[in-house]
Amino acid sequence: MEFSGQQIAELLNGKIEGNSDIKVHTISKIEEGKAGSLSFLANPKYTGYIYTTEASIVLVSEDFTAEKPVKATLIRVKDAYKAFATLLEFYNQYKQNKVGISPAAVIEKTAETGDNVYIGAHAYIGHNSKIGDNTKIYPNVYIGDNVVIGDTTTIYSGVNVYADCRIGSECTLHSGVVIGSDGFGFAPSTNEAFQKVPQIGNVIVEDNVEIGANTTIDRATLGSTMIRKGVKLDNLIQVAHNVEIGENTVIAAQTGISGSTKIGKNCMIGGQVGFAGHLKIGDNVKIGAQTGLIKNVENDAIVQGSPAIPYRNFFKSSAVFNELPELMRKVYKIEKSLNIDTDTK
Amino acid sequence: MEFSGQQIAELLNGKIEGNSDIKVHTISKIEEGKAGSLSFLANPKYTGYIYTTEASIVLVSEDFTAEKPVKATLIRVKDAYKAFATLLEFYNQYKQNKVGISPAAVIEKTAETGDNVYIGAHAYIGHNSKIGDNTKIYPNVYIGDNVVIGDTTTIYSGVNVYADCRIGSECTLHSGVVIGSDGFGFAPSTNEAFQKVPQIGNVIVEDNVEIGANTTIDRATLGSTMIRKGVKLDNLIQVAHNVEIGENTVIAAQTGISGSTKIGKNCMIGGQVGFAGHLKIGDNVKIGAQTGLIKNVENDAIVQGSPAIPYRNFFKSSAVFNELPELMRKVYKIEKSLNIDTDTK
Amino acid sequence: MEFSGQQIAELLNGKIEGNSDIKVHTISKIEEGKAGSLSFLANPKYTGYIYTTEASIVLVSEDFTAEKPVKATLIRVKDAYKAFATLLEFYNQYKQNKVGISPAAVIEKTAETGDNVYIGAHAYIGHNSKIGDNTKIYPNVYIGDNVVIGDTTTIYSGVNVYADCRIGSECTLHSGVVIGSDGFGFAPSTNEAFQKVPQIGNVIVEDNVEIGANTTIDRATLGSTMIRKGVKLDNLIQVAHNVEIGENTVIAAQTGISGSTKIGKNCMIGGQVGFAGHLKIGDNVKIGAQTGLIKNVENDAIVQGSPAIPYRNFFKSSAVFNELPELMRKVYKIEKSLNIDTDTK
Repeated sequence: MEFSGQQIAELLNGKIEGNSDIKVHTISKIEEGKAGSLSFLANPKYTGYIYTTEASIVLVSEDFTAEKPVKATLIRVKDAYKAFATLLEFYNQYKQNKVGISPAAVIEKTAETGDNVYIGAHAYIGHNSKIGDNTKIYPNVYIGDNVVIGDTTTIYSGVNVYADCRIGSECTLHSGVVIGSDGFGFAPSTNEAFQKVPQIGNVIVEDNVEIGANTTIDRATLGSTMIRKGVKLDNLIQVAHNVEIGENTVIAAQTGISGSTKIGKNCMIGGQVGFAGHLKIGDNVKIGAQTGLIKNVENDAIVQGSPAIPYRNFFKSSAVFNELPELMRKVYKIEKSLNIDTDTK
Repeated sequence: MEFSGQQIAELLNGKIEGNSDIKVHTISKIEEGKAGSLSFLANPKYTGYIYTTEASIVLVSEDFTAEKPVKATLIRVKDAYKAFATLLEFYNQYKQNKVGISPAAVIEKTAETGDNVYIGAHAYIGHNSKIGDNTKIYPNVYIGDNVVIGDTTTIYSGVNVYADCRIGSECTLHSGVVIGSDGFGFAPSTNEAFQKVPQIGNVIVEDNVEIGANTTIDRATLGSTMIRKGVKLDNLIQVAHNVEIGENTVIAAQTGISGSTKIGKNCMIGGQVGFAGHLKIGDNVKIGAQTGLIKNVENDAIVQGSPAIPYRNFFKSSAVFNELPELMRKVYKIEKSLNIDTDTK
Repeated sequence: MEFSGQQIAELLNGKIEGNSDIKVHTISKIEEGKAGSLSFLANPKYTGYIYTTEASIVLVSEDFTAEKPVKATLIRVKDAYKAFATLLEFYNQYKQNKVGISPAAVIEKTAETGDNVYIGAHAYIGHNSKIGDNTKIYPNVYIGDNVVIGDTTTIYSGVNVYADCRIGSECTLHSGVVIGSDGFGFAPSTNEAFQKVPQIGNVIVEDNVEIGANTTIDRATLGSTMIRKGVKLDNLIQVAHNVEIGENTVIAAQTGISGSTKIGKNCMIGGQVGFAGHLKIGDNVKIGAQTGLIKNVENDAIVQGSPAIPYRNFFKSSAVFNELPELMRKVYKIEKSLNIDTDTK
């Protein structure tokens, strides 16, 4: 697959300077550009590379002014970064344009599949499940019974979706994601053993959600664990039963959310954060990496630490933490100089 | 599937009040009850909902006294929560009543499968492995060679069990669980490279164990990594080689246990806890979330923090942590007022 | 499979003492030795067991002197531990000597497989992918399009390798590993929603790398996420887009590395460590468990804590942390004795 500068300029509605017949077949960083590749210049820090890059085509902003001769063909666009992202998306869709149902897939008779779907080898679609139009189910995916998946969603290889769950449209689930495993609910029983509390709810993932590799989302005990539209979850995240994550909230890798906690909209949550159960976290909250939440958090708060405190306090206190032995020695010296015994134990 | 109030009352040995012919086909929380659903009232906090719920049937305790008219059919039982759990279990078993061997499964000739098993599409059962009676192996599961799995165990889709491991009876392994991967053992070699220490032990999971989605349990270098009966592991937990987890111990998500650590019986361990290797943790120990263990822990201890200290100390010290900058300023002021130099550096 | 003492002595170039015809069929710890098993004595702490073990054969060092009668047949070697490791490796290779392509695997026509490969049931090999000689692909593995895998590499069941990634020779990928999932990149869009930044780079895993169960390695946005030769990753680790991990660096379980961070050579990194993005970590760095890195780290540093500080400081300050309530009370007593008000708020 090869494109000419002219084709790309038309696609991006840009203005071409230089050889418009030049062909590219791949994409590169400007500092690693090779003949046959297309790159972009958006960050002024990288401006120097435009004079040395071997990339055949470089996307630049409309107002870029070269101070030295540029070897590459330039395409001038309003926003070089956005134009590049558009091109990447185009390239990605082209590459991932898989379609058709593999004869090595197993689809139960009562399942329904929409138009233009891809269902790969060794995928399994359970009884009464529905797969929307243009949705891609990669090889080795398991879709349980009574599952509904929307349109234009991508489920990568090795995903497991338990019975009764719902996945929206335009979602992406990466390999190894588990949706709908049992919540971790056990009641004390006789002899110090535990008895399982049956988990008969489900998980609802709304539209435009992305879920990273090996992330796990447990089904609700009753009702639904809710992942609202636009949520972005990174890899290896744990979402327990009956949790709700609000619209457009973004969560970094390895964070864990205990049962029944509700997280608001538009939050930004760092990696390896832990939430106790039954908390209410407001909207627009920012939480630093490795934080431990044991109390509710108000809208717009910025917190860090385990247990969480306001973000500024955390960094100020952490600076003193490093000085604690010295601080203690100071107090002992003062005690000695005053000849008093402050021991309160 | 639909049940009448009469049928449910008989199943639970309860006393029915109201329309005993009313039919239900699903289960709901009392506050979200809809016509055709069955709910329960156990927590007095929710008593108000019994007068407004649309649920067709509500389980209540024998001594519940309505203060206003109740629209729903009531079934009086000794313990409404337990009765509801019984019903859930019944419903769950009904829904998961899968049986039979898929023609799309691959079972090696020397493997043995018990009576009444379910083996789903694209499952693989290795040489000389044995699957007990009534056990369910969902699609896309991998069972290596010489594996023994007990009776009435459920292995959900996408689980991987390496060769030579043993899984007991009445266990549940959720999707993505890995049992028997190599322990992380490497010996320094020439040129700063490492040489693998072969890991030829196995993992033994005793009866009545539940293991959450994407949890990993490494095989022993020699001997067995032991998960004793009644243990409950949440999602995304790491259990290293030669670890032993004692009976009925419960561990929350994302906790990691390093090699050769032994954890006692009846412990309750929070999420995101980390254990160093070769530790001995007593029985009945409670460990707060995000704790880091670097020393042995006595029976009945309650600890938290990284490194772990007694639980009460952790919360008291954490409260002071937030005040550290102020504490340091106080000490500087005292120094100044005394006109002494306590600098000990 | 059974071996005589004579056969083993020849294999290890050792000197046999006792019954050289005795047969063993398994391997055991010296303290758990049973008839028919082979064990070893390397750690002086375990010397006592050599007089009581039921193991049929014990490997000992050349200079071992028995102080009491020993029942087992002894094989004297230069280094008993190394000899045992050699034997384990031999045993392991014997057990894992799988070869051949399952008729239940799906291999696209344009894919190429080398000599002497094993490709298990329900494995999928995508278009234009290449599998090297002697490489083992276990059941239920997904290899996307345009993937290249070297020679003598083992990919255990349930691994997912996305399109365009490269895996070297003599690597081991454990079950549930995900290679090449999309990096977590989203740009703010209209209405507080996020737009995905297409991730079109790949992952390159060099030779002699081991990757633990359920570990995830994201593809680069552009260019490559790099895992250099000799790297050892434990289970459930997260490696984000554009990360680079230097030669022979070893990382324990559940650690997470954010986007574009570069880690040097020969580092030893504990479990549950978190790295912020865009950091530069030097060579030979040691990082304690549960550490949080938010700044660059120099070569040879040893750090711990969240945020990270020098290792010694961390343990000294942690000791004072436990005493903080007492320290605060001391300061209050001093204030009172001086009758001054140091409140600076």
